[in-house]
Amino acid sequence: HQKLEALRSHKAFEFFVIFVIIISALEIGAKTYDLPDLALSATQILDAFITLFFVFELAIRFITEPNKKHFFKSGWNVFDTLVVVISLIPINDSEMALLARLVRVFRVLRMVSIIPELRVLINSLIKALPQLGYVVLLLFIIFYIYAAVGSFMFKDINDVLWGNIAISMLTLFRIMTFEDWTDIQYETMEVYPFSWIFYMTFIFFTAFAFLNMVIGIVMNVMEE
Amino acid sequence: HQKLEALRSHKAFEFFVIFVIIISALEIGAKTYDLPDLALSATQILDAFITLFFVFELAIRFITEPNKKHFFKSGWNVFDTLVVVISLIPINDSEMALLARLVRVFRVLRMVSIIPELRVLINSLIKALPQLGYVVLLLFIIFYIYAAVGSFMFKDINDVLWGNIAISMLTLFRIMTFEDWTDIQYETMEVYPFSWIFYMTFIFFTAFAFLNMVIGIVMNVMEE
Amino acid sequence: HQKLEALRSHKAFEFFVIFVIIISALEIGAKTYDLPDLALSATQILDAFITLFFVFELAIRFITEPNKKHFFKSGWNVFDTLVVVISLIPINDSEMALLARLVRVFRVLRMVSIIPELRVLINSLIKALPQLGYVVLLLFIIFYIYAAVGSFMFKDINDVLWGNIAISMLTLFRIMTFEDWTDIQYETMEVYPFSWIFYMTFIFFTAFAFLNMVIGIVMNVMEE
Amino acid sequence: HQKLEALRSHKAFEFFVIFVIIISALEIGAKTYDLPDLALSATQILDAFITLFFVFELAIRFITEPNKKHFFKSGWNVFDTLVVVISLIPINDSEMALLARLVRVFRVLRMVSIIPELRVLINSLIKALPQLGYVVLLLFIIFYIYAAVGSFMFKDINDVLWGNIAISMLTLFRIMTFEDWTDIQYETMEVYPFSWIFYMTFIFFTAFAFLNMVIGIVMNVMEE
Ligand code: NA
Ligand code: NA
Repeated sequence: HQKLEALRSHKAFEFFVIFVIIISALEIGAKTYDLPDLALSATQILDAFITLFFVFELAIRFITEPNKKHFFKSGWNVFDTLVVVISLIPINDSEMALLARLVRVFRVLRMVSIIPELRVLINSLIKALPQLGYVVLLLFIIFYIYAAVGSFMFKDINDVLWGNIAISMLTLFRIMTFEDWTDIQYETMEVYPFSWIFYMTFIFFTAFAFLNMVIGIVMNVMEE
Repeated sequence: HQKLEALRSHKAFEFFVIFVIIISALEIGAKTYDLPDLALSATQILDAFITLFFVFELAIRFITEPNKKHFFKSGWNVFDTLVVVISLIPINDSEMALLARLVRVFRVLRMVSIIPELRVLINSLIKALPQLGYVVLLLFIIFYIYAAVGSFMFKDINDVLWGNIAISMLTLFRIMTFEDWTDIQYETMEVYPFSWIFYMTFIFFTAFAFLNMVIGIVMNVMEE
Repeated sequence: HQKLEALRSHKAFEFFVIFVIIISALEIGAKTYDLPDLALSATQILDAFITLFFVFELAIRFITEPNKKHFFKSGWNVFDTLVVVISLIPINDSEMALLARLVRVFRVLRMVSIIPELRVLINSLIKALPQLGYVVLLLFIIFYIYAAVGSFMFKDINDVLWGNIAISMLTLFRIMTFEDWTDIQYETMEVYPFSWIFYMTFIFFTAFAFLNMVIGIVMNVMEE
Repeated sequence: HQKLEALRSHKAFEFFVIFVIIISALEIGAKTYDLPDLALSATQILDAFITLFFVFELAIRFITEPNKKHFFKSGWNVFDTLVVVISLIPINDSEMALLARLVRVFRVLRMVSIIPELRVLINSLIKALPQLGYVVLLLFIIFYIYAAVGSFMFKDINDVLWGNIAISMLTLFRIMTFEDWTDIQYETMEVYPFSWIFYMTFIFFTAFAFLNMVIGIVMNVMEE
C-alpha cells in the first residue's frame, strides 16, 4: 500500500500519465485520417493498452485515498471514473462505432483533470457562472422576447430564419455575432421598412448585457 | 386588508407570480409553432386566466400600497399597469391579432419588473445612459457627417446603399459591424480610388468613440 | 463693445448658435433627398442666412477677444474660421457643387467646437495619439512586412488582392476585421498549403498590438 | 577604437541607421510594383549598399562591445547578425529569388531591434507568453477535442471543412472569428439537427478562454 502511495505521488508517474493522455490524443487525431489497415490494427492495440492503463491509474488513486467516501466528492474523480467506465463498455456495432470514438475523445479532457493549473481555470469558470446568473437570465429574456416578436412578424417573410421561436433564437445568435445580419435585415425591411429598429435595439441590448457580463468576470478576477 | 398584505409579501405568492409569467412566456413561445385547433383553444383559456391573474396581482399591489400617490411614481408600476391595461383591450380583427400578440410578448418583461436583481441591472443601464450622453452625441455627429458625405459622393454609384442620409447611416452601421464592408468599399473605389480613406477614418473614429463608451461604463461600475 | 460681450456670453445666444448649427445639419441631410425646386430655392436662402450668421458670430468672438493674438492660438478658433472662410467662396460650377456641399458638411463639426464636453472628448483623442505612437508604429511595421511578403508570394495568385504593397495593406486591414478572410486564405492555400501560417501569425500579432493599444488608452484614462 | 565608440553612440549615426532601414523598407515596397529596367538596376545597387552598410554597422557594434561573450547573449544581436549573414548569401536562381526577397523583408524588423521603445513592446509580448501558457494550452485542448468530434461527425457532410483534425482546427478558427460560420452550421444541421449545440458550446468555451487571456494580459500590465 505504501509502495502504491509512493508510485502515485512520484513525479515520473505523473509525467507518464500525461504522456499516455497525449498518446491517446494523438491516436484520436490519427483516426481522423484515412489509415492503412496495419495502422488501424495498431491503434486498436494501443487503445486497449490506454484503457487498461487508465483503469490501473484510477485504481491506484482510489486505493491510496485514505477516506474512500471523499473520493467521489471531487467532481474531477467522478469525471475520470465516468470516462474510464464508459470506455470499458465493448462497442462493436458500426453505428455505435461513432459513439465509441466520441467517448474516447473525452479522454483528452483528462488533461484538464490531471494538470492542476487547468483545473483552477475550469473551476474559476464554474464559480463565475452562478454570479453571472442574472445577466445570463436577462440576456435570455432579451433573446426570448425578440425571438417571439421576430417569429410573429417575419415568419411569412422567411420561414427558414423565423419559422418558430427556437429557430428565431438561433437567427438572433447569428445576428449577435454580426454574421450576414444585414441580409436578414434588408429582407424584412422590404415588408416592414422600420424593422431596422428591431435589429438596432436588439444589438444595443445584447451588447449592453454582454458588456455587463465581461465587467462582472473582470471584477471577479480582480477581487481575487 | 391585512390579509392581502400578508398574501402580497408571502414568498410562495411571489414565486407563483413568477411561475405565471413563465407559463405566459411558454404560451407565447408555443404560439410561434403551428398548433392544432384544440391547443389553440387551450391557449385562449390560458390567456384569459393569465390576464385575470395579472389584474388581480396588480390590484393587490395597488390596494396594499399605503400611499396611493406613490404607486405610479415607480416606473416599474407604471410599466406593469400599462402591460395589464393594454392586454385587457379586446382585439378580434385579424390585422390587430398581430398587435395583440406583440402586446402579450411584453408580459415576459414583467419578469424583469418582478425580480429585483434584474431591475437593478436595467436601472444601471438607464442610469448610465445620460452619463454616456456626450459620447453617444459624438458618435451620432460622426455618423451624420459621414452619412452626408457618403450620400453626396456615392449616391450615383449605389443608390440602395447611399440613396439618402437615413439609408447611408444604416449602411455605416453595417460597416461599423464589419459586415461585408469591403464589398461596399471596392465598389466606390472603382470610381474614387482614394475612398478607402473614407472607410478607414470612419472605422477609426467610431472605434475610438466606442472605446470611450466602454471605458465610461467600466469606470461607472468600478466607482460603485 | 460691452454690449457685444454681453451678447456673446448670454446663454440664449449660445443656444441660438447650437440651434443654427442643427438647422444647418438638417439642411445638409435634406439635400441628400430629391427635393422639389421650391425647397431647393428655400435651402439656398437658408444657406445664405447660415453663412451670414456664422460670419457674424465669429466676428463677435473675434472683437470681444481682449488679446487678438491669442485668438488664433486656439485650434478650435482656427477651425471655425476656416469653415466660415471656405463657405464664403462662391462656387457655381456643377463640378465644384459637390465640393461646396462637402465644405458645408464640416459646419456640423462646429457642434464639436461649440459644446465644451465634446471638445474635451476630441482633445483626449488628440492627446492619446502621440502616447500610442510606438504601438501604432509597431502595427504599421507588422502591416508593412506582411504586405511585402503577401505581395511577393501571392501576387500571381490574385492580383486584385495582392497586386502591390498598397493593395496588400488594404487586404490585410480587411483580414484584420475578419471580413471574408477565409476565402482569401483558401485561395492561397491551394498553391501554398502552409499559407495559413501567414494569416494565423498576422491575426495573432495584430491582435496583440491592438490589445496593447486598448490597454494603453485605458491606462491613460485611469490615471486621469 | 575610441573613435568607433564615439561614432556608434552618436545620435546622428543612430538616425542614419534608422534612415537606411527606412530606405531598405521603401525599396522592398517599390519591388512589389512592376518597375522599369533602370529602376530595377538601381535597386540592385541600393541593395548592395544597404547590405554593406548593415555589415559595417554590425561590425562596429561588435568591435565596441567590451565583453565579446555578452554580445550574442542578447537575442536582438543574434537576430541582427542572422539577418545580415543570410542577406550576404549570394542567390541567383529565379526560384531562390523569392527567398532572397523574403529574407530582405526581415531587414524591416531591424526597425524593432534599433528603436528601444519597440523592443520593450516585443519583450513584453515574449514575457507574457509563458504566463499565458496554461490558458493557451486550455484553448488548444478545446480546439483539439472539438476538431476531433467535428471530424468524426461531419467528415461525410463536408470533406473540405472537416476532412481531418488539422483541417477541422482551421475551420474552428474560422468559426471563432465568426467568419461565415452559420453556413457551416446550417450544413451540418441538415443531418444532425442538434449540431448547433456543437457550435454554441465551442463559441462559449473559446470566448471564455479568450476573455481569460485578455484579463491575464491586462493584469500583467497593471502590476507593472
Ligand atoms: Na461576414
Ligand atoms: Na464578420
